[in-house]
Amino acid sequence: MEDAMAFAGVPTEAEVLAWYRDENNWGRWGQQDQLGALNLITTAKRTQAAALVQTGETVSCARPITTDMTPDITHQVQRFMVDSGEARDTDPLERRNSRRGAAEFIGMVFHGQTITHIDALSHYSYDGLMYNGVPAGVVTSREGAQSHAIDLTAQGLVSRGVLLDIAKVRGVDWLPPDAPVMPEDLDAAERDHGVTVQEGDILLVRTGNYRRRLVDGPVPGTEPSVACHVACAPWFKERGIAMLGTDTSNDIRPNQYENIVSPLHISCLVYLGVWLIDNANLEDVAEVAARHGRYEFMLSIGALRLRNVTGSPVNPIAIF
Amino acid sequence: MEDAMAFAGVPTEAEVLAWYRDENNWGRWGQQDQLGALNLITTAKRTQAAALVQTGETVSCARPITTDMTPDITHQVQRFMVDSGEARDTDPLERRNSRRGAAEFIGMVFHGQTITHIDALSHYSYDGLMYNGVPAGVVTSREGAQSHAIDLTAQGLVSRGVLLDIAKVRGVDWLPPDAPVMPEDLDAAERDHGVTVQEGDILLVRTGNYRRRLVDGPVPGTEPSVACHVACAPWFKERGIAMLGTDTSNDIRPNQYENIVSPLHISCLVYLGVWLIDNANLEDVAEVAARHGRYEFMLSIGALRLRNVTGSPVNPIAIF
Amino acid sequence: MEDAMAFAGVPTEAEVLAWYRDENNWGRWGQQDQLGALNLITTAKRTQAAALVQTGETVSCARPITTDMTPDITHQVQRFMVDSGEARDTDPLERRNSRRGAAEFIGMVFHGQTITHIDALSHYSYDGLMYNGVPAGVVTSREGAQSHAIDLTAQGLVSRGVLLDIAKVRGVDWLPPDAPVMPEDLDAAERDHGVTVQEGDILLVRTGNYRRRLVDGPVPGTEPSVACHVACAPWFKERGIAMLGTDTSNDIRPNQYENIVSPLHISCLVYLGVWLIDNANLEDVAEVAARHGRYEFMLSIGALRLRNVTGSPVNPIAIF
Amino acid sequence: MEDAMAFAGVPTEAEVLAWYRDENNWGRWGQQDQLGALNLITTAKRTQAAALVQTGETVSCARPITTDMTPDITHQVQRFMVDSGEARDTDPLERRNSRRGAAEFIGMVFHGQTITHIDALSHYSYDGLMYNGVPAGVVTSREGAQSHAIDLTAQGLVSRGVLLDIAKVRGVDWLPPDAPVMPEDLDAAERDHGVTVQEGDILLVRTGNYRRRLVDGPVPGTEPSVACHVACAPWFKERGIAMLGTDTSNDIRPNQYENIVSPLHISCLVYLGVWLIDNANLEDVAEVAARHGRYEFMLSIGALRLRNVTGSPVNPIAIF
Repeated sequence: MEDAMAFAGVPTEAEVLAWYRDENNWGRWGQQDQLGALNLITTAKRTQAAALVQTGETVSCARPITTDMTPDITHQVQRFMVDSGEARDTDPLERRNSRRGAAEFIGMVFHGQTITHIDALSHYSYDGLMYNGVPAGVVTSREGAQSHAIDLTAQGLVSRGVLLDIAKVRGVDWLPPDAPVMPEDLDAAERDHGVTVQEGDILLVRTGNYRRRLVDGPVPGTEPSVACHVACAPWFKERGIAMLGTDTSNDIRPNQYENIVSPLHISCLVYLGVWLIDNANLEDVAEVAARHGRYEFMLSIGALRLRNVTGSPVNPIAIF
Repeated sequence: MEDAMAFAGVPTEAEVLAWYRDENNWGRWGQQDQLGALNLITTAKRTQAAALVQTGETVSCARPITTDMTPDITHQVQRFMVDSGEARDTDPLERRNSRRGAAEFIGMVFHGQTITHIDALSHYSYDGLMYNGVPAGVVTSREGAQSHAIDLTAQGLVSRGVLLDIAKVRGVDWLPPDAPVMPEDLDAAERDHGVTVQEGDILLVRTGNYRRRLVDGPVPGTEPSVACHVACAPWFKERGIAMLGTDTSNDIRPNQYENIVSPLHISCLVYLGVWLIDNANLEDVAEVAARHGRYEFMLSIGALRLRNVTGSPVNPIAIF
Repeated sequence: MEDAMAFAGVPTEAEVLAWYRDENNWGRWGQQDQLGALNLITTAKRTQAAALVQTGETVSCARPITTDMTPDITHQVQRFMVDSGEARDTDPLERRNSRRGAAEFIGMVFHGQTITHIDALSHYSYDGLMYNGVPAGVVTSREGAQSHAIDLTAQGLVSRGVLLDIAKVRGVDWLPPDAPVMPEDLDAAERDHGVTVQEGDILLVRTGNYRRRLVDGPVPGTEPSVACHVACAPWFKERGIAMLGTDTSNDIRPNQYENIVSPLHISCLVYLGVWLIDNANLEDVAEVAARHGRYEFMLSIGALRLRNVTGSPVNPIAIF
Repeated sequence: MEDAMAFAGVPTEAEVLAWYRDENNWGRWGQQDQLGALNLITTAKRTQAAALVQTGETVSCARPITTDMTPDITHQVQRFMVDSGEARDTDPLERRNSRRGAAEFIGMVFHGQTITHIDALSHYSYDGLMYNGVPAGVVTSREGAQSHAIDLTAQGLVSRGVLLDIAKVRGVDWLPPDAPVMPEDLDAAERDHGVTVQEGDILLVRTGNYRRRLVDGPVPGTEPSVACHVACAPWFKERGIAMLGTDTSNDIRPNQYENIVSPLHISCLVYLGVWLIDNANLEDVAEVAARHGRYEFMLSIGALRLRNVTGSPVNPIAIF
């Protein structure tokens, strides 16, 4: 365990464990439920989201995916051409007629700290159990995620998106690792932005973490890093968010607790059933939101229909 | 070359080549343009699309992606766990604290005949040239698609989607390979559905081809196959569609022309700049459209922000 | 469980389990040993092997590795070019000077039923334990084989190779699935070939199984299949072979026992410490051995120095 | 082009080009030949090699292959478990009976500067031509190396290995980048070691380059690097070596010529037909050779039987 942060409002390990035990959403949507807080995205919620569209601008909330080997990745992304466009001008007719177009293999481990992706509820467990008490052992090497997998979002994730730009409210380019997002920050941002997070929203929280990477370059994934503190978990539950997306990997480093690694992941994925978007790119959406003075918008996410997989790389689109 | 189809309205090779030469969109949006017909998706178009949302239902237009080796694939999809959930219940604390969640590598060649994907304009060339006259040789094995790549759609593809359900209009479960979609079918479907395809639309054409696969199972990719006939290309240009998505691989087999393989791909990708969605799943969207008697809807696609890549696997979401 | 074979000499499940318990090599080379029967390949054994070289002919005992999707594979082999030789003749000088040669990515799951490969002792466990009682749990998804891995053979596997051509002795092109290799076959082949298997030998047993595949084509990996019957295990232990290589996947199908799947793998890898070569190609070596009337030769194997891996694809070379 | 080295014996670009034109082996073994200097490894050569075996010691000439991302690689090696050994102790019987053993996917781009591998003659071309005048364009993205591929070595590479330890002769731990191996070094090493390189030998040249990496750590592949200078090419041809293996990537950096990148690769692979071993590990073999005062030995290499591939990762085994 690392040295604990020393600031107000940080729950003790016992308090976090008590939340896990007492404040979870297990059973709330039935014993067989695998969707968790996605149940809160209703058709009414989606029509409300569509009604927010005014200017027709679209903004990506995803980072580019590259094959670069940077200090913050553990698995290099692959891009290999199956066929290229080379020599098309000199190919004989027979050869040209047998070609089928330039194409490539792409491969990646989307989990980690660089690719914008969704964490399905199968991504995490605690004490051997996933959301709703399903044993983590159903996620096997051979078969993959036999429950709580990304397939559950096949029909799309469309809801009202709300951006809380904590870096802007604090007046900094980016939050330092030792000053993570606390519930007070969320409240302050709501007041500043004139927006209130509601049930079924997809909440986007900007810390400026991706801005830091763009400006200062990538740092090893073991370095201290900012995120929403697990102290925010009760706030998320109280507001009833369906998903949380941030420009961080969604847990602060170094870890603060002896027996809980990645406490926010565990809070959201295991106990609240709140799906996560890790490593979002909130630079452009923050700029557009600030320009319009409007921090709510339609948000549309089409996760790949991968089978038995614990998440998906995504390109969430905010529509203003 | 295979034996030609013998029915009315099929253009000769000379006619197709003349279209390529005389009816293309090269230079229409500037000599440097790489977007092609995506230029027709304006902010006004997107607000129009959002205004179509009434019930808040969302429907995926994508097929599931599996690792199965079926007769219609040439490259098996990969899913390998980087870490699983096995033994979490018996792991010692130290081990549990060092784990980072279940995760996997996924890899695929999305082009082909099984995965729902976008073809960027770099996917195809003719006579050594891509859209707007850029040499195909810029798509290299080492660097990938250095132009006309999927990166261009980073900010999302959101527009009015229009479904023309040709199988329904013809009263068949699916179109046979020797009776592809012709311009008359598109006209008839418009009349039947009470909808008119307009500039900037993303046009979805259903042949029932995926239904056939679900019912009869996959067949080798060399078997005869249905699609929109290249005879439809002038219709697409005249209406000004931005993208074409179908439940086929977007060219009929066997090929009809001696010097043109994949004539529809070439028409759309090389000469018109119309981006394609191959292998869509239009079963659910057709069911919902028929139920509501409404064949227009908001369509949202967030292609992965892959760099220098000729397309992307996608999950297009129709919002009613 | 499948119906049991009904022929003489087949041990009961209880007998096999008794062998596991009473006839194993655990502790024979120390409590920390991970090499198992490879300890029997001494420097003296290798000089003996080299002394067998007379004609200087070399023969591969490996099958070609292809990207074909055949009924007997579960994971397609990958070959993707990182750079090709296309357009080298028309490349401008600058481009030619920046190229580094044609190269490719290769990827495979070598275990299975098509690729000639070594099984390291980490490939198998029984009752949660590997050879010498090490818990199977040290072979993790994240870290790989942290013990009993292929690294142990880094310095090469060179010994006397002995071929027993059972198909030849039985006078058939290949053994049928319901007549696997029994100890009597091994004895008969020794007599026929005029050779005696000795301690430290790498024993190659030919059933004609690969010949069948070449002639009749691949069949699904779930079909009945021939191999050495687990009844041969005491014979292998008594002779003191260091490795066993056959032209099969080294266990008969269907399985005969209720609680033991792959009993020969378990006998060899878990209890005797005898490393395996699966899916060898013994066609050419059998032809050369028969031509010379000599069934012993030098055998040299250089497994890849993969780290924490449960085996390696190999090309074993017989030198006559 | 980089600044040229300024020391005696360095040929001008014109001289190198003249060698290519006048001193090549094209046609020497027939117009259809793809083996090149491997033709010089005869059965007599192999029996001579086997006769060198005295002590029975085996030594690997390969480096370990790891998934580490180091500054000297461009493509990370992959190792993903298809099944692990986790939870085997608590699996229910049914589950245990359906498992097939721990296994993994391995994937790599073996060309580069870290993995010990063979370069087949298809790896390089000059002026659009490969060895014996075959167009480089037969090595395509889609089909791979349709000529001059590694398949040609299927039956194994076994010959007399000769080690020339240049670092030892020069009395340094490793040669600096600006003092590459020159023909005089080869002569001096022969005298020092009491060995003469002969026709059909596989020549191993040690510069200490891998020792440097072990001691000082990896450096980016663009840094200056030692190798045999192309000035040695006539020496290699005159002696008639079949293969050249060194502990370098087989061309010095920075490059010295304006129109020739990788001049040694081109000399060997394109004009002489001499196959290469890049990135060998000659530390152990040098130690054993020095200990015995014997720099000749049997060398055995079993390249993987990959189809249409430009080389293979290998573990060459020296047998003393």
